Amino acid sequence: MYKLVLLRHGESDWNKQNRFTGWTDVDLSEQGVQEAAEAGRLLKKEGFVFDIAYTSVLKRAINTLHLALNSMDQVWIPVEKSWRLNERHYGALQGLNKAETAEQHGEEMVKVWRRSYDTPPPALETSDERYPGHDPRYADLGEAELPRTECLKDTVERFLPLWHDTIAPVIRSGKRVVIAAHGNSLRALVKYLDNISDDEIVGLNIPTGIPLVYELDADLKPLKNYYLGDQDAIAAKAQAVANQGKSG
Amino acid sequence: MYKLVLLRHGESDWNKQNRFTGWTDVDLSEQGVQEAAEAGRLLKKEGFVFDIAYTSVLKRAINTLHLALNSMDQVWIPVEKSWRLNERHYGALQGLNKAETAEQHGEEMVKVWRRSYDTPPPALETSDERYPGHDPRYADLGEAELPRTECLKDTVERFLPLWHDTIAPVIRSGKRVVIAAHGNSLRALVKYLDNISDDEIVGLNIPTGIPLVYELDADLKPLKNYYLGDQDAIAAKAQAVANQGKSG
Repeated sequence: MYKLVLLRHGESDWNKQNRFTGWTDVDLSEQGVQEAAEAGRLLKKEGFVFDIAYTSVLKRAINTLHLALNSMDQVWIPVEKSWRLNERHYGALQGLNKAETAEQHGEEMVKVWRRSYDTPPPALETSDERYPGHDPRYADLGEAELPRTECLKDTVERFLPLWHDTIAPVIRSGKRVVIAAHGNSLRALVKYLDNISDDEIVGLNIPTGIPLVYELDADLKPLKNYYLGDQDAIAAKAQAVANQGKSG
Repeated sequence: MYKLVLLRHGESDWNKQNRFTGWTDVDLSEQGVQEAAEAGRLLKKEGFVFDIAYTSVLKRAINTLHLALNSMDQVWIPVEKSWRLNERHYGALQGLNKAETAEQHGEEMVKVWRRSYDTPPPALETSDERYPGHDPRYADLGEAELPRTECLKDTVERFLPLWHDTIAPVIRSGKRVVIAAHGNSLRALVKYLDNISDDEIVGLNIPTGIPLVYELDADLKPLKNYYLGDQDAIAAKAQAVANQGKSG
Protein backbone atom coordinates (compact mmCIF):
# COMPACT_ATOMS: atom_id res chain seq x y z
CA MET A 1 0.00 0.00 0.00
CA TYR A 2 1.21 3.50 -0.88
CA LYS A 3 0.53 6.87 0.72
CA LEU A 4 0.39 10.01 -1.39
CA VAL A 5 -0.01 13.48 0.13
CA LEU A 6 -1.56 16.42 -1.73
CA LEU A 7 -1.15 19.96 -0.44
CA ARG A 8 -2.90 22.99 -1.89
CA HIS A 9 -0.85 26.16 -1.43
CA GLY A 10 -1.72 28.47 1.46
CA GLU A 11 -3.60 31.73 0.96
CA SER A 12 -2.04 34.03 -1.65
CA ASP A 13 -2.16 37.79 -1.90
CA TRP A 14 -4.79 37.46 -4.61
CA ASN A 15 -6.90 34.86 -2.74
CA LYS A 16 -7.12 37.62 -0.13
CA GLN A 17 -8.07 40.20 -2.77
CA ASN A 18 -10.54 37.68 -4.25
CA ARG A 19 -9.00 37.97 -7.74
CA PHE A 20 -8.74 35.31 -10.45
CA THR A 21 -5.12 34.19 -10.32
CA GLY A 22 -4.53 31.27 -12.68
CA TRP A 23 -0.94 31.37 -13.95
CA THR A 24 -0.24 34.81 -12.47
CA ASP A 25 2.76 34.27 -10.22
CA VAL A 26 1.55 35.90 -6.98
CA ASP A 27 3.16 35.08 -3.66
CA LEU A 28 1.72 33.72 -0.43
CA SER A 29 0.09 36.13 2.01
CA GLU A 30 1.42 36.18 5.58
CA GLN A 31 -1.47 33.86 6.47
CA GLY A 32 -0.48 31.57 3.58
CA VAL A 33 3.07 31.40 4.94
CA GLN A 34 1.69 30.38 8.34
CA GLU A 35 -0.62 27.78 6.78
CA ALA A 36 2.26 26.20 4.86
CA ALA A 37 4.53 25.99 7.92
CA GLU A 38 1.64 24.55 9.96
CA ALA A 39 0.93 21.92 7.28
CA GLY A 40 4.53 20.78 7.62
CA ARG A 41 4.33 20.66 11.41
CA LEU A 42 1.17 18.55 11.15
CA LEU A 43 2.77 16.15 8.66
CA LYS A 44 5.81 15.80 10.91
CA LYS A 45 3.65 15.20 14.00
CA GLU A 46 1.76 12.47 12.12
CA GLY A 47 5.05 10.79 11.16
CA PHE A 48 5.07 11.52 7.44
CA VAL A 49 8.40 11.29 5.64
CA PHE A 50 8.88 11.97 1.93
CA ASP A 51 11.43 10.84 -0.63
CA ILE A 52 10.52 13.28 -3.39
CA ALA A 53 8.22 16.25 -3.98
CA TYR A 54 6.44 17.64 -7.02
CA THR A 55 5.19 21.16 -7.43
CA SER A 56 4.27 23.72 -10.10
CA VAL A 57 6.43 26.53 -11.47
CA LEU A 58 4.40 29.09 -9.50
CA LYS A 59 5.91 30.53 -6.34
CA ARG A 60 2.84 30.20 -4.13
CA ALA A 61 3.05 26.40 -4.52
CA ILE A 62 6.88 26.24 -4.51
CA ASN A 63 7.09 28.37 -1.37
CA THR A 64 4.32 26.37 0.33
CA LEU A 65 6.30 23.21 -0.33
CA HIS A 66 9.56 24.76 0.85
CA LEU A 67 8.01 26.07 4.07
CA ALA A 68 6.28 22.74 4.80
CA LEU A 69 9.49 20.78 4.13
CA ASN A 70 11.42 23.14 6.39
CA SER A 71 8.90 22.46 9.18
CA MET A 72 9.46 18.73 8.60
CA ASP A 73 13.26 19.11 8.42
CA GLN A 74 13.08 17.50 4.96
CA VAL A 75 14.14 20.37 2.74
CA TRP A 76 16.94 18.21 1.30
CA ILE A 77 14.65 15.89 -0.69
CA PRO A 78 14.52 16.28 -4.50
CA VAL A 79 11.87 18.73 -5.70
CA GLU A 80 10.64 18.57 -9.30
CA LYS A 81 8.75 21.52 -10.72
CA SER A 82 6.40 21.18 -13.67
CA TRP A 83 4.08 23.61 -15.47
CA ARG A 84 1.68 20.65 -15.67
CA LEU A 85 0.94 21.18 -11.98
CA ASN A 86 0.14 24.87 -12.47
CA GLU A 87 -3.26 26.25 -11.54
CA ARG A 88 -5.89 26.23 -14.27
CA HIS A 89 -5.19 29.07 -16.68
CA TYR A 90 -8.00 31.59 -16.24
CA GLY A 91 -7.62 33.27 -19.64
CA ALA A 92 -8.74 36.87 -19.89
CA LEU A 93 -10.18 36.76 -16.35
CA GLN A 94 -6.70 36.63 -14.80
CA GLY A 95 -6.23 39.63 -12.56
CA LEU A 96 -9.93 40.52 -12.32
CA ASN A 97 -11.79 40.63 -9.01
CA LYS A 98 -14.19 37.69 -8.63
CA ALA A 99 -17.06 39.66 -7.09
CA GLU A 100 -16.74 42.51 -9.65
CA THR A 101 -16.68 39.98 -12.48
CA ALA A 102 -19.85 38.46 -11.02
CA GLU A 103 -21.51 41.89 -10.94
CA GLN A 104 -20.56 42.54 -14.60
CA HIS A 105 -21.25 39.15 -16.14
CA GLY A 106 -23.72 37.76 -13.63
CA GLU A 107 -23.14 35.20 -10.91
CA GLU A 108 -24.28 32.38 -13.17
CA MET A 109 -21.77 33.16 -15.93
CA VAL A 110 -18.95 33.40 -13.40
CA LYS A 111 -20.08 30.17 -11.81
CA VAL A 112 -19.93 28.51 -15.25
CA TRP A 113 -16.41 29.83 -15.86
CA ARG A 114 -15.30 28.81 -12.39
CA ARG A 115 -17.10 25.52 -12.07
CA SER A 116 -18.17 24.17 -15.43
CA TYR A 117 -16.05 21.21 -16.50
CA ASP A 118 -15.69 22.10 -20.16
CA THR A 119 -16.51 25.81 -20.68
CA PRO A 120 -13.33 27.90 -20.58
CA PRO A 121 -13.30 31.63 -19.72
CA PRO A 122 -12.60 34.08 -22.59
CA ALA A 123 -9.16 33.41 -24.13
CA LEU A 124 -6.15 35.73 -24.04
CA GLU A 125 -4.73 37.15 -27.25
CA THR A 126 -1.14 36.00 -27.80
CA SER A 127 -0.18 39.69 -27.80
CA ASP A 128 -1.54 40.04 -24.24
CA GLU A 129 1.29 40.37 -21.71
CA ARG A 130 -0.47 37.71 -19.62
CA TYR A 131 -0.01 35.11 -22.41
CA PRO A 132 2.46 32.50 -21.06
CA GLY A 133 4.43 32.51 -24.33
CA HIS A 134 6.03 35.75 -23.10
CA ASP A 135 7.34 34.16 -19.88
CA PRO A 136 10.84 32.57 -19.95
CA ARG A 137 9.75 29.76 -17.64
CA TYR A 138 7.62 28.38 -20.49
CA ALA A 139 10.28 28.84 -23.18
CA ASP A 140 10.52 25.07 -23.78
CA LEU A 141 6.78 24.68 -24.47
CA GLY A 142 5.35 24.57 -27.97
CA GLU A 143 2.46 26.79 -29.00
CA ALA A 144 0.02 23.88 -28.75
CA GLU A 145 0.94 23.43 -25.08
CA LEU A 146 0.75 27.10 -24.14
CA PRO A 147 -2.76 27.84 -22.90
CA ARG A 148 -4.63 31.03 -23.73
CA THR A 149 -7.39 29.87 -21.37
CA GLU A 150 -8.42 26.58 -19.78
CA CYS A 151 -11.52 24.82 -18.55
CA LEU A 152 -11.00 22.13 -15.90
CA LYS A 153 -11.10 19.50 -18.66
CA ASP A 154 -8.07 21.16 -20.26
CA THR A 155 -6.25 21.19 -16.92
CA VAL A 156 -6.96 17.47 -16.43
CA GLU A 157 -5.63 16.71 -19.91
CA ARG A 158 -2.36 18.60 -19.49
CA PHE A 159 -1.83 17.33 -15.94
CA LEU A 160 -2.35 13.60 -16.58
CA PRO A 161 0.81 13.02 -18.67
CA LEU A 162 2.88 14.09 -15.64
CA TRP A 163 0.96 11.61 -13.50
CA HIS A 164 1.26 8.68 -15.90
CA ASP A 165 4.81 9.29 -17.13
CA THR A 166 6.48 10.51 -13.95
CA ILE A 167 4.63 10.54 -10.63
CA ALA A 168 2.78 7.20 -10.80
CA PRO A 169 5.93 5.19 -11.71
CA VAL A 170 7.82 6.90 -8.89
CA ILE A 171 5.09 5.97 -6.38
CA ARG A 172 5.11 2.38 -7.68
CA SER A 173 8.90 2.30 -7.16
CA GLY A 174 8.18 2.75 -3.45
CA LYS A 175 9.07 6.42 -3.09
CA ARG A 176 6.93 8.47 -0.74
CA VAL A 177 5.55 11.43 -2.67
CA VAL A 178 4.10 14.82 -1.75
CA ILE A 179 2.53 17.10 -4.36
CA ALA A 180 2.20 20.80 -3.53
CA ALA A 181 0.00 22.46 -6.11
CA HIS A 182 -3.22 24.36 -6.78
CA GLY A 183 -6.98 24.02 -6.36
CA ASN A 184 -7.60 22.91 -9.92
CA SER A 185 -4.49 20.86 -10.68
CA LEU A 186 -5.12 18.88 -7.48
CA ARG A 187 -8.79 18.58 -8.39
CA ALA A 188 -7.65 17.13 -11.73
CA LEU A 189 -5.73 14.44 -9.87
CA VAL A 190 -8.54 13.76 -7.40
CA LYS A 191 -10.99 13.41 -10.31
CA TYR A 192 -8.73 10.85 -11.93
CA LEU A 193 -7.90 8.90 -8.76
CA ASP A 194 -11.48 8.71 -7.45
CA ASN A 195 -13.02 8.45 -10.92
CA ILE A 196 -15.32 11.41 -10.21
CA SER A 197 -17.78 12.40 -12.95
CA ASP A 198 -17.47 15.65 -14.91
CA ASP A 199 -20.59 16.95 -13.14
CA GLU A 200 -19.53 16.05 -9.63
CA ILE A 201 -15.94 17.31 -9.76
CA VAL A 202 -17.15 20.90 -10.15
CA GLY A 203 -18.69 20.78 -6.65
CA LEU A 204 -15.54 19.44 -4.97
CA ASN A 205 -13.49 22.04 -3.05
CA ILE A 206 -10.00 21.43 -1.68
CA PRO A 207 -9.11 23.71 1.25
CA THR A 208 -5.78 25.58 1.28
CA GLY A 209 -2.84 24.40 3.36
CA ILE A 210 -4.43 21.16 4.63
CA PRO A 211 -2.58 17.92 3.79
CA LEU A 212 -4.87 15.51 1.92
CA VAL A 213 -3.70 11.91 2.31
CA TYR A 214 -4.51 9.18 -0.23
CA GLU A 215 -3.90 5.56 0.61
CA LEU A 216 -3.45 3.66 -2.67
CA ASP A 217 -3.35 -0.05 -3.48
CA ALA A 218 -0.74 -1.74 -5.68
CA ASP A 219 -2.58 -0.51 -8.80
CA LEU A 220 -2.71 3.02 -7.35
CA LYS A 221 -6.47 2.73 -6.79
CA PRO A 222 -7.56 4.72 -3.71
CA LEU A 223 -8.39 2.67 -0.61
CA LYS A 224 -9.31 5.79 1.33
CA ASN A 225 -8.47 9.46 1.68
CA TYR A 226 -8.58 11.93 4.54
CA TYR A 227 -7.46 15.42 5.54
CA LEU A 228 -4.99 15.80 8.38
CA GLY A 229 -6.02 18.06 11.25
CA ASP A 230 -9.17 19.51 12.82
CA GLN A 231 -12.10 18.24 10.72
CA ASP A 232 -14.53 21.09 11.55
CA ALA A 233 -11.99 23.77 10.57
CA ILE A 234 -11.38 21.92 7.28
CA ALA A 235 -15.09 21.83 6.40
CA ALA A 236 -15.38 25.57 7.11
CA LYS A 237 -12.39 26.27 4.84
CA ALA A 238 -13.82 24.25 1.95
CA GLN A 239 -17.07 26.21 2.26
CA ALA A 240 -15.18 29.52 2.19
CA VAL A 241 -13.61 28.54 -1.17
CA ALA A 242 -17.04 27.63 -2.57
CA ASN A 243 -18.41 31.07 -1.57
CA GLN A 244 -15.70 33.14 -3.30
CA GLY A 245 -17.60 33.45 -6.59
CA LYS A 246 -20.62 35.12 -5.00
CA SER A 247 -20.95 38.86 -5.45
CA GLY A 248 -22.11 41.37 -2.86
CA MET B 1 31.71 33.37 -22.95
CA TYR B 2 29.88 31.93 -19.96
CA LYS B 3 29.09 33.39 -16.55
CA LEU B 4 28.95 31.17 -13.49
CA VAL B 5 27.90 32.45 -10.06
CA LEU B 6 29.05 30.88 -6.79
CA LEU B 7 27.30 31.74 -3.54
CA ARG B 8 28.48 30.62 -0.11
CA HIS B 9 25.58 30.24 2.33
CA GLY B 10 24.90 33.06 4.76
CA GLU B 11 25.86 32.87 8.44
CA SER B 12 24.55 29.76 10.19
CA ASP B 13 23.67 29.26 13.85
CA TRP B 14 26.97 27.42 14.29
CA ASN B 15 29.09 30.00 12.44
CA LYS B 16 27.77 32.33 15.12
CA GLN B 17 28.69 29.88 17.88
CA ASN B 18 32.08 29.33 16.20
CA ARG B 19 31.58 25.54 16.04
CA PHE B 20 32.88 23.06 13.44
CA THR B 21 29.83 22.29 11.34
CA GLY B 22 30.79 20.10 8.38
CA TRP B 23 27.85 17.88 7.45
CA THR B 24 25.82 18.83 10.53
CA ASP B 25 22.56 20.20 9.13
CA VAL B 26 22.27 23.50 11.01
CA ASP B 27 20.07 26.30 9.74
CA LEU B 28 20.83 29.89 8.82
CA SER B 29 20.93 32.50 11.57
CA GLU B 30 18.68 35.54 11.22
CA GLN B 31 21.70 37.37 9.82
CA GLY B 32 22.28 34.52 7.37
CA VAL B 33 18.69 34.85 6.16
CA GLN B 34 19.24 38.56 5.55
CA GLU B 35 22.55 37.91 3.74
CA ALA B 36 20.90 35.39 1.41
CA ALA B 37 17.99 37.70 0.54
CA GLU B 38 20.46 40.56 -0.02
CA ALA B 39 22.61 38.40 -2.32
CA GLY B 40 19.51 37.81 -4.45
CA ARG B 41 18.66 41.52 -4.53
CA LEU B 42 22.22 42.30 -5.64
CA LEU B 43 22.13 39.65 -8.38
CA LYS B 44 18.81 41.00 -9.61
CA LYS B 45 20.06 44.58 -9.58
CA GLU B 46 23.10 43.52 -11.63
CA GLY B 47 20.84 41.84 -14.18
CA PHE B 48 21.69 38.20 -13.46
CA VAL B 49 19.22 35.56 -14.63
CA PHE B 50 19.66 31.83 -14.09
CA ASP B 51 18.37 28.75 -15.89
CA ILE B 52 19.33 26.17 -13.28
CA ALA B 53 20.77 26.03 -9.76
CA TYR B 54 22.90 23.51 -7.90
CA THR B 55 23.18 23.18 -4.15
CA SER B 56 24.09 20.70 -1.42
CA VAL B 57 21.72 18.57 0.66
CA LEU B 58 22.30 20.82 3.68
CA LYS B 59 19.61 23.32 4.61
CA ARG B 60 21.87 26.31 5.16
CA ALA B 61 22.84 26.17 1.47
CA ILE B 62 19.38 25.13 0.21
CA ASN B 63 17.67 27.92 2.16
CA THR B 64 20.28 30.45 1.03
CA LEU B 65 19.55 29.52 -2.57
CA HIS B 66 15.78 29.63 -2.03
CA LEU B 67 15.91 33.05 -0.37
CA ALA B 68 18.21 34.47 -3.05
CA LEU B 69 16.01 33.09 -5.85
CA ASN B 70 12.94 34.54 -4.16
CA SER B 71 14.63 37.96 -4.10
CA MET B 72 15.33 37.53 -7.83
CA ASP B 73 11.79 36.27 -8.57
CA GLN B 74 13.41 33.15 -10.03
CA VAL B 75 12.27 30.50 -7.58
CA TRP B 76 10.71 28.50 -10.45
CA ILE B 77 14.05 27.41 -11.99
CA PRO B 78 15.14 23.78 -11.54
CA VAL B 79 17.24 23.17 -8.42
CA GLU B 80 19.45 20.08 -8.19
CA LYS B 81 20.77 19.02 -4.81
CA SER B 82 23.87 16.88 -4.43
CA TRP B 83 25.84 15.62 -1.43
CA ARG B 84 28.94 16.32 -3.57
CA LEU B 85 28.38 20.03 -2.87
CA ASN B 86 28.24 19.49 0.91
CA GLU B 87 30.68 21.23 3.20
CA ARG B 88 33.90 19.35 3.96
CA HIS B 89 33.16 16.61 6.50
CA TYR B 90 34.90 17.62 9.71
CA GLY B 91 35.05 14.14 11.23
CA ALA B 92 35.16 13.92 15.02
CA LEU B 93 35.49 17.71 15.29
CA GLN B 94 31.89 18.25 14.14
CA GLY B 95 29.96 20.05 16.86
CA LEU B 96 33.05 21.22 18.79
CA ASN B 97 33.78 24.90 19.40
CA LYS B 98 36.69 26.13 17.30
CA ALA B 99 38.31 28.24 20.02
CA GLU B 100 37.96 25.48 22.65
CA THR B 101 39.42 22.95 20.23
CA ALA B 102 42.33 25.34 19.69
CA GLU B 103 42.86 25.59 23.47
CA GLN B 104 42.86 21.78 23.82
CA HIS B 105 44.89 20.77 20.79
CA GLY B 106 46.83 23.98 20.15
CA GLU B 107 46.24 26.62 17.51
CA GLU B 108 48.75 24.99 15.18
CA MET B 109 46.99 21.59 15.19
CA VAL B 110 43.62 23.22 14.58
CA LYS B 111 45.12 25.30 11.81
CA VAL B 112 46.41 22.11 10.21
CA TRP B 113 42.99 20.45 10.45
CA ARG B 114 41.29 23.55 9.12
CA ARG B 115 43.76 24.62 6.51
CA SER B 116 46.08 21.79 5.54
CA TYR B 117 45.26 20.40 2.12
CA ASP B 118 45.73 16.73 2.90
CA THR B 119 45.60 16.17 6.69
CA PRO B 120 42.06 15.22 7.76
CA PRO B 121 40.76 15.75 11.31
CA PRO B 122 40.24 12.62 13.48
CA ALA B 123 37.73 10.25 11.84
CA LEU B 124 34.30 9.32 13.19
CA GLU B 125 33.53 5.74 14.18
CA THR B 126 30.72 4.31 12.03
CA SER B 127 28.81 3.76 15.30
CA ASP B 128 28.92 7.51 15.99
CA GLU B 129 25.52 9.13 15.47
CA ARG B 130 27.27 11.82 13.42
CA TYR B 131 28.39 9.21 10.83
CA PRO B 132 26.45 10.03 7.61
CA GLY B 133 25.59 6.35 7.07
CA HIS B 134 22.86 6.84 9.69
CA ASP B 135 21.18 9.67 7.77
CA PRO B 136 18.44 8.76 5.23
CA ARG B 137 19.57 11.50 2.83
CA TYR B 138 22.73 9.47 2.15
CA ALA B 139 20.94 6.11 1.85
CA ASP B 140 21.95 5.75 -1.82
CA LEU B 141 25.68 6.15 -1.10
CA GLY B 142 28.02 3.20 -0.77
CA GLU B 143 30.35 2.85 2.21
CA ALA B 144 33.33 4.01 0.11
CA GLU B 145 31.55 7.29 -0.62
CA LEU B 146 30.42 7.98 2.95
CA PRO B 147 33.08 10.09 4.66
CA ARG B 148 34.15 9.57 8.27
CA THR B 149 36.31 12.69 7.93
CA GLU B 150 37.71 14.73 5.08
CA CYS B 151 40.68 16.91 4.28
CA LEU B 152 40.19 19.50 1.53
CA LYS B 153 41.81 17.10 -0.95
CA ASP B 154 39.03 14.59 -0.22
CA THR B 155 36.41 17.29 -0.74
CA VAL B 156 37.94 18.24 -4.09
CA GLU B 157 37.94 14.59 -5.18
CA ARG B 158 34.30 13.94 -4.35
CA PHE B 159 33.14 17.29 -5.73
CA LEU B 160 34.85 17.11 -9.14
CA PRO B 161 32.71 14.27 -10.60
CA LEU B 162 29.65 16.52 -10.18
CA TRP B 163 31.47 19.29 -12.03
CA HIS B 164 32.71 17.13 -14.89
CA ASP B 165 29.64 14.92 -15.33
CA THR B 166 26.86 17.41 -14.66
CA ILE B 167 27.58 21.09 -14.14
CA ALA B 168 30.26 21.70 -16.80
CA PRO B 169 28.20 20.10 -19.62
CA VAL B 170 25.17 22.16 -18.55
CA ILE B 171 27.21 25.38 -18.68
CA ARG B 172 28.57 24.40 -22.11
CA SER B 173 24.99 23.86 -23.30
CA GLY B 174 24.46 27.58 -22.67
CA LYS B 175 22.50 27.39 -19.43
CA ARG B 176 23.20 30.09 -16.86
CA VAL B 177 24.20 28.39 -13.62
CA VAL B 178 24.30 29.42 -9.96
CA ILE B 179 25.86 27.17 -7.31
CA ALA B 180 24.90 27.78 -3.67
CA ALA B 181 27.19 25.81 -1.43
CA HIS B 182 29.80 25.91 1.34
CA GLY B 183 33.20 27.38 2.09
CA ASN B 184 35.13 24.23 1.23
CA SER B 185 33.07 22.80 -1.62
CA LEU B 186 33.29 26.20 -3.35
CA ARG B 187 36.98 26.37 -2.56
CA ALA B 188 37.32 22.96 -4.26
CA LEU B 189 35.76 24.42 -7.40
CA VAL B 190 37.83 27.62 -7.27
CA LYS B 191 41.00 25.53 -6.86
CA TYR B 192 40.11 23.55 -9.95
CA LEU B 193 38.99 26.51 -12.10
CA ASP B 194 41.93 28.76 -11.24
CA ASN B 195 44.43 25.90 -11.03
CA ILE B 196 45.50 26.99 -7.53
CA SER B 197 48.25 24.97 -5.84
CA ASP B 198 47.62 22.75 -2.80
CA ASP B 199 49.62 25.21 -0.67
CA GLU B 200 47.89 28.35 -1.87
CA ILE B 201 44.31 27.15 -1.70
CA VAL B 202 44.50 26.84 2.09
CA GLY B 203 44.92 30.62 2.37
CA LEU B 204 41.93 31.46 0.18
CA ASN B 205 38.78 32.51 2.05
CA ILE B 206 35.37 32.90 0.45
CA PRO B 207 33.06 35.28 2.35
CA THR B 208 29.48 34.24 3.16
CA GLY B 209 26.52 35.50 1.17
CA ILE B 210 28.50 37.42 -1.48
CA PRO B 211 27.96 36.35 -5.10
CA LEU B 212 31.27 35.36 -6.72
CA VAL B 213 31.10 35.70 -10.51
CA TYR B 214 33.34 33.70 -12.87
CA GLU B 215 33.54 34.61 -16.52
CA LEU B 216 34.62 31.50 -18.44
CA ASP B 217 35.81 30.98 -22.01
CA ALA B 218 34.52 28.27 -24.36
CA ASP B 219 36.77 25.70 -22.63
CA LEU B 220 35.48 26.85 -19.21
CA LYS B 221 38.83 28.46 -18.42
CA PRO B 222 38.39 31.56 -16.22
CA LEU B 223 38.82 34.91 -17.96
CA LYS B 224 38.23 36.80 -14.74
CA ASN B 225 36.32 36.62 -11.47
CA TYR B 226 34.90 39.18 -9.08
CA TYR B 227 32.61 39.56 -6.10
CA LEU B 228 29.42 41.57 -6.46
CA GLY B 229 28.91 44.43 -4.03
CA ASP B 230 30.94 46.70 -1.75
CA GLN B 231 34.59 45.61 -2.10
CA ASP B 232 35.77 46.84 1.34
CA ALA B 233 32.98 45.00 3.17
CA ILE B 234 33.88 41.83 1.25
CA ALA B 235 37.56 42.01 2.25
CA ALA B 236 36.56 42.48 5.91
CA LYS B 237 34.29 39.44 5.73
CA ALA B 238 37.00 37.20 4.25
CA GLN B 239 39.33 38.28 7.09
CA ALA B 240 36.68 37.41 9.70
CA VAL B 241 36.51 33.85 8.33
CA ALA B 242 40.31 33.53 8.49
CA ASN B 243 40.30 34.59 12.16
CA GLN B 244 37.76 32.00 13.40
CA GLY B 245 40.36 29.36 14.27
CA LYS B 246 42.20 31.58 16.73
CA SER B 247 41.58 30.95 20.43
CA GLY B 248 41.26 33.56 23.13
